Order: sequence, then C-alpha cells, then structure tokens
Amino acid sequence: MPPLVDQHCHGVLREVPTGVTEFAGWLSESGAPPAPGTSHADSALGLAVRRWCPPALGMPAYAPLDAYLEARRALGAQEANRALLRAAGIGALLVDDGPLPGAVLPAAELATAAGATAFTVTRLEPLAEAAADLAGRDTDAFLARLAGSVERARARSVAFKSVAAYRHGLHLEAAPPSRAELWTAAEHWLLTRRTGGRLANPVLLRHLLWSAAGTGLPLQLHTGFGDTELRLHRADPSLLTDFIRAVAPMGCPLVLLHCYPFHRQAAHLAAVYPHVYADLGLTLSHVGGRAPAVLAETWELAPFGKVLFSTDAYGLPELYLVGARQFSWALTEALAGPGWPPAEAHRAAVLLAAENARRLYRLPGAAA
Amino acid sequence: MPPLVDQHCHGVLREVPTGVTEFAGWLSESGAPPAPGTSHADSALGLAVRRWCPPALGMPAYAPLDAYLEARRALGAQEANRALLRAAGIGALLVDDGPLPGAVLPAAELATAAGATAFTVTRLEPLAEAAADLAGRDTDAFLARLAGSVERARARSVAFKSVAAYRHGLHLEAAPPSRAELWTAAEHWLLTRRTGGRLANPVLLRHLLWSAAGTGLPLQLHTGFGDTELRLHRADPSLLTDFIRAVAPMGCPLVLLHCYPFHRQAAHLAAVYPHVYADLGLTLSHVGGRAPAVLAETWELAPFGKVLFSTDAYGLPELYLVGARQFSWALTEALAGPGWPPAEAHRAAVLLAAENARRLYRLPGAAA
Amino acid sequence: MPPLVDQHCHGVLREVPTGVTEFAGWLSESGAPPAPGTSHADSALGLAVRRWCPPALGMPAYAPLDAYLEARRALGAQEANRALLRAAGIGALLVDDGPLPGAVLPAAELATAAGATAFTVTRLEPLAEAAADLAGRDTDAFLARLAGSVERARARSVAFKSVAAYRHGLHLEAAPPSRAELWTAAEHWLLTRRTGGRLANPVLLRHLLWSAAGTGLPLQLHTGFGDTELRLHRADPSLLTDFIRAVAPMGCPLVLLHCYPFHRQAAHLAAVYPHVYADLGLTLSHVGGRAPAVLAETWELAPFGKVLFSTDAYGLPELYLVGARQFSWALTEALAGPGWPPAEAHRAAVLLAAENARRLYRLPGAAA
Repeated sequence: MPPLVDQHCHGVLREVPTGVTEFAGWLSESGAPPAPGTSHADSALGLAVRRWCPPALGMPAYAPLDAYLEARRALGAQEANRALLRAAGIGALLVDDGPLPGAVLPAAELATAAGATAFTVTRLEPLAEAAADLAGRDTDAFLARLAGSVERARARSVAFKSVAAYRHGLHLEAAPPSRAELWTAAEHWLLTRRTGGRLANPVLLRHLLWSAAGTGLPLQLHTGFGDTELRLHRADPSLLTDFIRAVAPMGCPLVLLHCYPFHRQAAHLAAVYPHVYADLGLTLSHVGGRAPAVLAETWELAPFGKVLFSTDAYGLPELYLVGARQFSWALTEALAGPGWPPAEAHRAAVLLAAENARRLYRLPGAAA
Repeated sequence: MPPLVDQHCHGVLREVPTGVTEFAGWLSESGAPPAPGTSHADSALGLAVRRWCPPALGMPAYAPLDAYLEARRALGAQEANRALLRAAGIGALLVDDGPLPGAVLPAAELATAAGATAFTVTRLEPLAEAAADLAGRDTDAFLARLAGSVERARARSVAFKSVAAYRHGLHLEAAPPSRAELWTAAEHWLLTRRTGGRLANPVLLRHLLWSAAGTGLPLQLHTGFGDTELRLHRADPSLLTDFIRAVAPMGCPLVLLHCYPFHRQAAHLAAVYPHVYADLGLTLSHVGGRAPAVLAETWELAPFGKVLFSTDAYGLPELYLVGARQFSWALTEALAGPGWPPAEAHRAAVLLAAENARRLYRLPGAAA
Repeated sequence: MPPLVDQHCHGVLREVPTGVTEFAGWLSESGAPPAPGTSHADSALGLAVRRWCPPALGMPAYAPLDAYLEARRALGAQEANRALLRAAGIGALLVDDGPLPGAVLPAAELATAAGATAFTVTRLEPLAEAAADLAGRDTDAFLARLAGSVERARARSVAFKSVAAYRHGLHLEAAPPSRAELWTAAEHWLLTRRTGGRLANPVLLRHLLWSAAGTGLPLQLHTGFGDTELRLHRADPSLLTDFIRAVAPMGCPLVLLHCYPFHRQAAHLAAVYPHVYADLGLTLSHVGGRAPAVLAETWELAPFGKVLFSTDAYGLPELYLVGARQFSWALTEALAGPGWPPAEAHRAAVLLAAENARRLYRLPGAAA
C-alpha cells in the first residue's frame, strides 16, 4: 500500500490537553457537557481513540483514557504528537487553513512531525470576512479585495473549501449571482455586520463557490453531519444537484466531504457526474466499529476512481492516527467481503488510499 | 444486567383476540387488509413474535401462529398476559396514557402482571382536545383549562409526549407562538371543530410543545415511521433542529422516539445537543432479524449516555416480550462486534437498558 | 424455486458492442467519461458483471473484461445474447416499451431468446408526447388522442409506468388536475414545445398518473436513483404519500421501482398501504457485493407479500443475468440470517421471486 494522502485535515495543537475532560471535549462535535455520569469519550469515536492510540505510545489497545493521557504527559507534548502523527502512515496532508481554537503547529512543523508533505486548502468564507474587515462599508473595495484574495489563494493552494452547509445550507440557488444581486447583498452585509462577523448570506456564499470554480482548482464542500451550527437536513449533498450541473462547464472538480448520513446520495452524485468526488472524512473515525459497514455503503454506487480518503483530523494528532487506522481497517474489512476478487480489491485500495487524490490534486508523484 | 426500563409503552388489552387474522392485525401499522394470500404476520415483526413468544408459553420457538394462539386460548387471557409480561424482564414501565381501541388493563394491574413499577407519560394532544370539548367556543376558557391540565399532568407524570409528527409534521416553526397567534389559532379551531375532533393546527401543536417544555419534565416526541396518518418525510427528527435549539434554555430534555429510518439523524442530534436523547422504540421489534444492524447504526454517532430503550408495546403483551427480547438480543449481538472491549460493552449495555432512563426520568434507584 | 418473474425490464440490443469502453458505458448511469485512468466497469456493477457473466460463456468468474468480450465476439452476438438470457432463469418478462438508443430485439424475439413469456408495460410519458406530435396545437385533439392511447394501451399491457420522478420529481400535487387546470397546462405545453419535445409539465404528469390509475392496471413509478436527469432528493417515494392516499379508492396498485437509497421509506409505504408494492429494480445489480445487505434493509419493514423482483435490464443481456443472479444470491444470503425459520424463508423466497408478481399482474399461473 502507498502512503496515505489525507485530502482534508486541520491543524494540530502544539500542546494537547491531557486532562480527561478537556481531552474528551475534542472528541465531540457538541460544545456542551456530556450526559451526567458519562464522558464525551463514551462514544464510538472515544473507543476508536482507545483502540488505536495507546499502542503508538507502547501501551495495550483499549488502555483506560486516564492511563493513556498520563503516559502522554510523561512523554511530553512534542514527542507524543510526533509519535502519533508518524504512526499514521500519511505521506501527504492537505490542510484546511480555517482557524482553530488554540495554538497550532505551523504547516511546515506539522509536515515534519508527520513525515509528510503538506499542501494548503484555502477556506473561502474567511477570505470574504477578512476582505470585509478591511473594506469597511466600501462595497466595490470589498468585492475587489475578495477577488484578489481568491486569485492569490489559487497560487498557493491545491484546493478551495466551502462551509456553506454550515452557514446557510446546501439549498442554494444554482446559478452565479448577477452583478446587481451580488452588489446588493454585499452592500447589505457590509452595512449590517460587525468587524469579525461571520458570512452567512446565501448570495455571497454562492459568489464564493463560483469564484472558486472559476479558478479550476478542486472545490471541497462540507456536506453531512457536523456541529450544532448545522441543520442536518440542509446538508444533504443531493441538494447541490443543480449547482453541480451548472458548474460542470467550468472544469472544476467538486469534492463532497463527510457526507454521512447521506453518503449513499453522495455516492450517486459521484457515480453520475464526472467532476464529483466523495470522501467520508470524519465519518469513519466517528462511527468506530461500524466503519467497514459505512465505507461499504459508500461504494455501493460510487466508482472506485471517485472515492477519497481524509481524516478531517482537528486539534489532536490522535485524530490523524485514528482516521488513518479506521480507514485502513475499514478498507481491508470491506474489500474482504463478497464480490471482490483480490486483484481488484488491491487496485481499489490503492486508488482510494492515495492515487485518486494524487490525480485529482495533481500532487507530485501522481500518474499523468 | 439490571431489569429493563421500558421508557415508552402503551396499555395492554384485557382480552387479546386469539383468532389468527384479528391477532395479526395488531402486528401491522396498516389499518387495511394484507396482500391477498398473505397475513399481517408475514413480516419481520410476525416472525419475531413467533421467535420469542411461544417459548414463554412452553412451546418451541417458531411454532405456527395458530398453534400458539390455541395454546394462548387454552391458558386463558389473564394467565397468558401474565406469563408474557413476566418473561419480558422489565422493571419499570413508562406508560403513554393515549387511548387504545379496546378494554385495557389499568396501569396498576398492568404493573402487577408485569412485576414492574408503572409511571405515567401524559400525551399532550388529548389534553387540548379534552379542554376544547369542555370549553366550547370560549377561547379564554380553553386556554386556561389547557394550562391547568398541563399543570395537573406535571404532578402525576414522569414525562410528556407529543404526536405532532402525525398531526402536522415536524416542520414546525421553532419559536413559541405569540399570544395573538395562539389566541387566533385557538379561536379558529374552536369555531371549526366538532366535539371530539383531533388537534392538527400547527400553532396549537407548538403551543403544547412549549407548554410541556415549561414544566421541565422530559418531552417525548414521535419521529420516524408509524401508521398511515403520517407523512414519513415530515417525520425526520432533523426537522426539529431549530426547535431543539430554541427550547434548550428551558432545561427540558427531548426524547426522540422510534426515529427509523432517520435514526442516524436522531443519533447526530443526540450527539451534539446535551438535552436530546434517542430511542428506537418500536423499530427493533418491527425490523426482526435486522435489529442488531439497526441498533448498531444508531450508536455510530449517538453517545452511549444518550440512547434509551422502549418497546412501544401496544395492545398485545406479546409486543412487550418481543420488544424486550429484540432489544436484549440486538444489544448483545451489536456489542460483540469489533471495536468493543468487554468492560465497555457491559457498561454501555447497562446504560442503554436502564441507567440512562433512570437518570433522565429521575426514577427511584437512579444514580444521582 | 419457480422461474423468476422480472417485473420491470427493457429491450436488449441486437448487437452488443464488444469494445471495452463502449461496453462499459452501458454499465453506468452517467453519460460522461469515467475518472481518468479508470473505466465505467470500475464499480460494484462492473465487478458483478465479471462475477456472473463469464461462467455463462464457459469462462471462470472474474475473467478480465477484455477476455470476456473477446469470447463474446467469437461466439457471435445472437448466440451470446441467447446464452446469457437463458442462464438468467427468468420465466416471465414485463418489458417497459420506452425507447432505447440502439436497435433492439422485438419482444417476441427477446422472449424466445430468454425462453420466457413477454408482457408489455406501457410508459406513460411517450403516449403524451406522441399525442402532442400528432395534435399540433389543438388542445382538445391532444387530450382526446391521449385518452384513446391510454385506453388502447390498457388492452395490450399488464401495467403502466411513469418516469415523473425524472421529468419533474415526486413532489407533485396529489389530486387529479381539474379540467381547467389540465386544459391550460396542455394548451401551454402545445404552444411552447417543439415536435419530439419531452413532457415535464407537472400538471400533465399528474394527469397521466390519474389516467393510468383509472384503468385499474398496476402503475409502476420510478423512484430513487437513476441518471443525471434526476434530482435524487425529489425521487424519495415518501413524497408520494398524499398521492398514494388520494388514489387508493381507484383500486390501482402502485409499484415503487428501484427506491434506493430510500428503500426503507418505500418499505414503510408498502407496509402500511395495501395497494403499494416495492421493488429494488436496478439497485441489486448496481450495489454488487452489498446486495444482501440492501435487500435485508428493504424487508425490515416491507411485508413479504409486497416485495417484487426485477432486473431493470437495459440494452445488455448481461444485465438480465446479473440482475437475476444478484437477486437470487442476495435472497439466499439474506434469508440465511437470524430470525428466519427455513420454511418461512422458502415461502418468502417464492413470493418475492415470482408469486407476488404473478398475483399482482394476474399473469397466467398465478394463484387466484
């Protein structure tokens, strides 16, 4: 198997908290406390962390979380991060540059620690928010700054990423906004927002999607589950169908991230639209022992050339290791099922683990 | 394993019909005849009844339904009810006080027959219907009577229950209705309804939800599949997202019942909102041999502290026994899957079977 | 096991292309090229073709596609078609008379090649398109011609079929259009369409559904996934709930085709409405090794008297063989799961494979 290409991940904390409660908080998409008498590690993801991470620090699988965190503390943050990241077997990291709460390793340090090459994925919404912070109430200046930001990001990135699913939902109009519609929406937003305010205007979110599509770089879209900012029924990727059709002539590949529990819908889109790809992202980590079943559900319809791998790791290097191990394990289990001759199973595994992403993002070492 | 806490069930018929066709009619959510040449017992639920119930009457599993019903008749209704209920191993029953077609055992008799403690769950919509029957066209009197009913129900109940999914769908406005909106809706309903008429007005349904939330008692909500009164795509629990957010400050736990085929959506809500719980209810009985798979799908995302057990048994004591056995069997099977260390599997089983419900409903014997 | 009744299929090409790329194109619902470096046969369906078809030509399962196609070429189109169709073990074919791109075998030749009896399923939308081509802009003439076409089709068909899911989506008004609504829609369509133009007007699509329902013949409805003409979230069969209720008094059975990934929703409709049936259609072929799991998901709720079999084979006789083998294999696997006593498993298999369809379509040999 080639080293994995993690096509969507986030920064890693320089100092991971080693208190059980604080650590477990990073394992939940909820910002609130767990049910009384339980912990945020009392979940399929919590068990997956206990399954895969203690062995990377020389402990048995399923060691209790407090013992694991004590060992982690004894080892020191830097050394533990390095041991966990190295164990993941990832050769390339595509890092979403969206902000994290906490001091994170710069991309170059992350890459060194992981023994991998790092590439940048530029998140779209912060580009608009930064442009608005600088432009004040000058709509023309805002739109010009934003266009410049997108153009500059294109040069340093391998992909763009949108969280429109969080900010509004995927039930967006398909067509690019007209100049008048865009100008009106921008003017209204600039007049009503406070500095630092988040972008949630659907016209401007559409404008970002079309701006990214115009660069020809792959565009990653959050779909499916996430945290409490999201309405799940508005994150069904099939809501994007009209946009997928409208954007096809731009030659911009679309990558549906996470997708669950709409991964069968995402697989259908990847099957029938040549520019659509699907990735389970954080799903395989969160569903724990069910990862083989969920992966198998995904390629019921998705062609093997259209499914990607990512950890969506966020904050904890544990989530890199868990994402990688869950994927490799699920892949092996699912490909051992009926209907897979060994040679084809091996070929599909190589495509999903690395080659599809290398080809899509034109990474060094990709087949032409 | 502790005795089960059945957190949502219904009354039991004093005299269960022992004709095959009449008995099988209680196994279907359809009010209509089965396909020609088949029976309403020709379903996964029908097979589950044949799997679990004959042994409780001393017969082999999968005895033919007519032989089983003959043995039941020979035993007598009271003794058969008692044998089936006792075999279920349920320690506490939370009984929805909604009406059943047929003479049912009073709660105290049901509890004695089952060897369990019974608690009341008050259904909201009948409170409004009863208040309207008494208030005639006097809107102020209606609203005052309803408020009094809710207050009195709070004192005698461990939870409220809403069937808004049936009466309208879960795509309700999130906010409580304004006084003017409520008064107008109530006036219109009182003017147009006939005595005994069902409540389907979305403003009044919302008012009931917010009235219940104001008591602080847990609020059970029907979601997912049911009978022909329901539009399935309007019963997706993720449609409740805005209500879930709006009601959070009230401190009222929400319990999503049944959920199927949206149980993965329900699990996500339970994972990210601290006051949301999920329960497969009648699902595990209806899906027969697939119960382990469906239960496993549910805790892909749901934390173990947030999943509950209920039979949703209705009319037949067989449905208590089937619900309990299906749950216990599915739990054992699903926890034997990969990713579960034995100690955690046991702890999760105890939480799901009883402890989560004891804590949530503050039942005697609950951990503080 | 009785010979299968394939309750929904399409014509077979007289000359199947034996170039790998052209052949593989018939295995995808996409009209576009596959991902670079891959083939349209790099999918679960592609592997299923390689699993089941080479043995019918005397080759080992999973023979490479190019070797298989060379053997096919050597055998000759007619002989290969015949060998593949015969191997499928289908006794009755219900052939959708919708057009195919390519010269197809006439129904009588197809039946002879397959050793089966062929029956006609009349697709509704082409009846309207043909009536419009002939009526020009004369609305009365159009409506009269259409009524005559439906009446004549009734005499020669065992069922009607609608692709309203493609043309508009299943979120149609439930009631039949009023005379005025119908006349206005027809007039508008005739004024704006070009000869040969497709019908997508929701009022006229509804009129077709109600016209078919008036004949009392079973009405097959495309639901769930398909090609790029379809918006998947508009093909959820539960969107049909109001229509299902409204049409019930007509005595016209409704057959939900394909259904995936909404097969659990379809199963619920089949469970609670006596006139609704569900069929996985092309799903079991497309999901490859996952067919047992998907079939099992379907009868979680669907009574055994309400599930049908079809291949939805289209163009390639390989798709008849794959559809039949996938179904038989999935059925055997799924019925070997827990909760199935052998006698009931056998009875359910016979119902699903043939008897339900024989009864529903009143085919010769059906039980009364």
